[in-house]
Amino acid sequence: MNFLQEVVDILLAYIVESFDRSTKVIDFHYPNELLQRNNWELSDEPETLDDILISCRATLKYAIKTAHPRYFNQLSTGLDMVGLAADWLTSTANTNMFTYEVAPVFVLLEYVTLKKMREIIGWQDGHGDGIFSPGGAISNMYAMLLARYKMFPEVKEKGMSSVPRLVAFTSEHSHFSIKKGAAALGIGTESVICIKADERGKMIPSDLERRIIEAKQKGYVPFFVSATAGTTVYGAFDPLIAIADICKKHDVWMHVDGAWGGSLLMSRKHRWKLNGVERANSMTWNPHKMMAVPLQCSALLVREEGLMQSCNQMQACYLFQQDKHYDLQYDTGDKALQCGRHVDIFKLWLMWRAKGTIGFEAQIDKCLELSEYLYNKIKDREGYQMVFDGKPQHTNVCFWYLPPGVRYLEDKVERMKRLHKVAPVIKARMMEYGTTMVSYQPQGDKVNFFRMVISNPAATFEDIDFLIEEIERLGQDL
Amino acid sequence: MNFLQEVVDILLAYIVESFDRSTKVIDFHYPNELLQRNNWELSDEPETLDDILISCRATLKYAIKTAHPRYFNQLSTGLDMVGLAADWLTSTANTNMFTYEVAPVFVLLEYVTLKKMREIIGWQDGHGDGIFSPGGAISNMYAMLLARYKMFPEVKEKGMSSVPRLVAFTSEHSHFSIKKGAAALGIGTESVICIKADERGKMIPSDLERRIIEAKQKGYVPFFVSATAGTTVYGAFDPLIAIADICKKHDVWMHVDGAWGGSLLMSRKHRWKLNGVERANSMTWNPHKMMAVPLQCSALLVREEGLMQSCNQMQACYLFQQDKHYDLQYDTGDKALQCGRHVDIFKLWLMWRAKGTIGFEAQIDKCLELSEYLYNKIKDREGYQMVFDGKPQHTNVCFWYLPPGVRYLEDKVERMKRLHKVAPVIKARMMEYGTTMVSYQPQGDKVNFFRMVISNPAATFEDIDFLIEEIERLGQDL
Repeated sequence: MNFLQEVVDILLAYIVESFDRSTKVIDFHYPNELLQRNNWELSDEPETLDDILISCRATLKYAIKTAHPRYFNQLSTGLDMVGLAADWLTSTANTNMFTYEVAPVFVLLEYVTLKKMREIIGWQDGHGDGIFSPGGAISNMYAMLLARYKMFPEVKEKGMSSVPRLVAFTSEHSHFSIKKGAAALGIGTESVICIKADERGKMIPSDLERRIIEAKQKGYVPFFVSATAGTTVYGAFDPLIAIADICKKHDVWMHVDGAWGGSLLMSRKHRWKLNGVERANSMTWNPHKMMAVPLQCSALLVREEGLMQSCNQMQACYLFQQDKHYDLQYDTGDKALQCGRHVDIFKLWLMWRAKGTIGFEAQIDKCLELSEYLYNKIKDREGYQMVFDGKPQHTNVCFWYLPPGVRYLEDKVERMKRLHKVAPVIKARMMEYGTTMVSYQPQGDKVNFFRMVISNPAATFEDIDFLIEEIERLGQDL
Repeated sequence: MNFLQEVVDILLAYIVESFDRSTKVIDFHYPNELLQRNNWELSDEPETLDDILISCRATLKYAIKTAHPRYFNQLSTGLDMVGLAADWLTSTANTNMFTYEVAPVFVLLEYVTLKKMREIIGWQDGHGDGIFSPGGAISNMYAMLLARYKMFPEVKEKGMSSVPRLVAFTSEHSHFSIKKGAAALGIGTESVICIKADERGKMIPSDLERRIIEAKQKGYVPFFVSATAGTTVYGAFDPLIAIADICKKHDVWMHVDGAWGGSLLMSRKHRWKLNGVERANSMTWNPHKMMAVPLQCSALLVREEGLMQSCNQMQACYLFQQDKHYDLQYDTGDKALQCGRHVDIFKLWLMWRAKGTIGFEAQIDKCLELSEYLYNKIKDREGYQMVFDGKPQHTNVCFWYLPPGVRYLEDKVERMKRLHKVAPVIKARMMEYGTTMVSYQPQGDKVNFFRMVISNPAATFEDIDFLIEEIERLGQDL
């Protein structure tokens, strides 16, 4: 107990430090250096608790401060105190989600929360099904699995060789997990047809319909469309109403990957961007991103009740005894792909209680306001070029910073070649100084650009100002 | 911060209570009762922090005390203070496993720990690969995915329709996740051939070979054998050497599902039960079970390096930039099925440092000693009947308790019918009194029996004595 309290004291100090702008986001070291500088080896003999405390301190010393108000590197940032407390409680309760028997409260809270989320999506009376899964990639994989089973239930017993060639559709800007899922499920990445996106990164519905018809003509069976609500790089929202019309017409399962953008449903100001989501058959929604719930917390919501159960159940009698003394509808284990399942619900539920829906809304609205502030500030600023025109729809702001040495180059090829190297160098310097972190990547034929995202409720206008100054400071000599 | 400390105080009190034998394992209520008795609803408006503390207390009040020395219900029990502290630190660090960039220390610790585990398996110099996945079912699914890819790499792009009919083999006592994985991967449950087990629950190698040959004769392609090291119900260890010989002869991937029994590799006294595991191509090993690491902590170990990467990579450039300034071999995200991946490594690593290998060994040996004590105590005791003969190989002890009213029944059919109802009633009473919890299930043609398992290092000989007395007390009138 004393030991636990000592660790808590270390953690509390770390948290205070994480929110302090004068501390580094990261104390960066190269992998080999970090391996050599510390003894991380496992041995036969035990260490003392004092050594263990030293290991805890060392681990935190070299960790990224993901709660730092200037950490913009990922879609999941920030640290909510209620969410953290809930996660500590979850660890202490140390149980599994498979049955009401071993997790009575958590199973009920999942039931209550999934229903609430379905109501927010707009499914009638919150009817339907769902599960918290280990991340958006697995949630998307569940959706694909359900779509396949819905159309060809025999695939469960007989496998893919019993069905015609299935094809799935998603935009060229969608998350790679759609292809990863198709590879794993035995569908194959070549059967994932990438639909063109417009210059803002939104799926072009006419291209979707054209490709569906083309696939049918080849004798393939379109079974799954994954629309994205909030793409990873551009933060684009696919036009869900138009996509829903096409899915209905061609009788294809409509999935909405809202891992990143789904949380905008919590905002009265921004939820129109997902109009049409209520017509989807399934939706991925990760509260660990835009709602800043501690990692991980990803939900798959499904409109049809009972489908998950029949798709995934194996009725292992040693786990799901049918002669138990309570109502078995709360035993959720058999509808999961997992056997044991981590308790991811409590942190979301407790944060929701502490903030209310309006608290999440305010937090989300503020992040979007910050991104608009950044956009307005750099769109006409010298040395900046936006990757696409127009106000950001999500908190993603994609831009190039052109250092003076690149800005005035006349040779376009040389300019692009030089520009491609700018973001990686600035990013490496950010990490070495530890002042801030923001992501970059190329996309299609576009050379490396910065992708700024804001999901940390602790970020302010000043932090945005700082980011711009820092990019210019670190990039001026390039 | 005050709030966090208040939650910690609640948690510390809960922990003390959990280890106290005079408190209940569970304060049981039926689902509807629990739903009505409390307000778990989510609303628009926030609650006060005081209300949040009340919710925390209520959640713990109705939780199962999985650390209680008399909680024997699952394969994962107990609560280790170092493991718990590590999990609290993990929550506080709140990051993801995909790259060295966002999780430098955790990624290195995973690297170090997986290597150590491979050394313990006996793979040369600890070479190979692996990943911590969200549970044994997903680890097993990874293994099946890798085996398929190894034999038919084109399946990744072209799907299952490009390959001949694949068949997998596992014993009739194996975990249901093998079938679940086959269903998900598009292989189909009918292509999982169940091999006969002997009366102790061990796979019969001659039956395996017969079924492999039979499958080949039908034109099917055997690609995967999953041997079990520690079955869920009987705790049986399949004969790995004989199975390895057959896999080698027929050129089939050999997987060992050691989710439950893999940890016996840590014990010099018991590791012989896994002799032959060093010849496997992959192994599932869940430290969250027999090593009492907090949930979840499941590893998949793979003998061939690089295979996971080529099987699963999609090279999403926005996540795995190739022009980063550090050694990219530590960016593990692209070999995973998940995108974001929870940090499950730190609790295992820190416990290993605190206990040393010999600490885990002592803990495991003690649990096995307790189960042998139970076995010796009941094997000839009046009113008990063992489900199978002989000393337990793992901590599973499977037995019927025959209450006086059933014990002397001459009509065999009636006796079985009555006996089938005994365990569920005793279990329901255990939960209502809250004194202890132990699992039961039928198996094949065997009516409901108790499956005792011991993985809680806090359990003692007295707790075993208590269990026997309690079963007799609660069942005497049946």
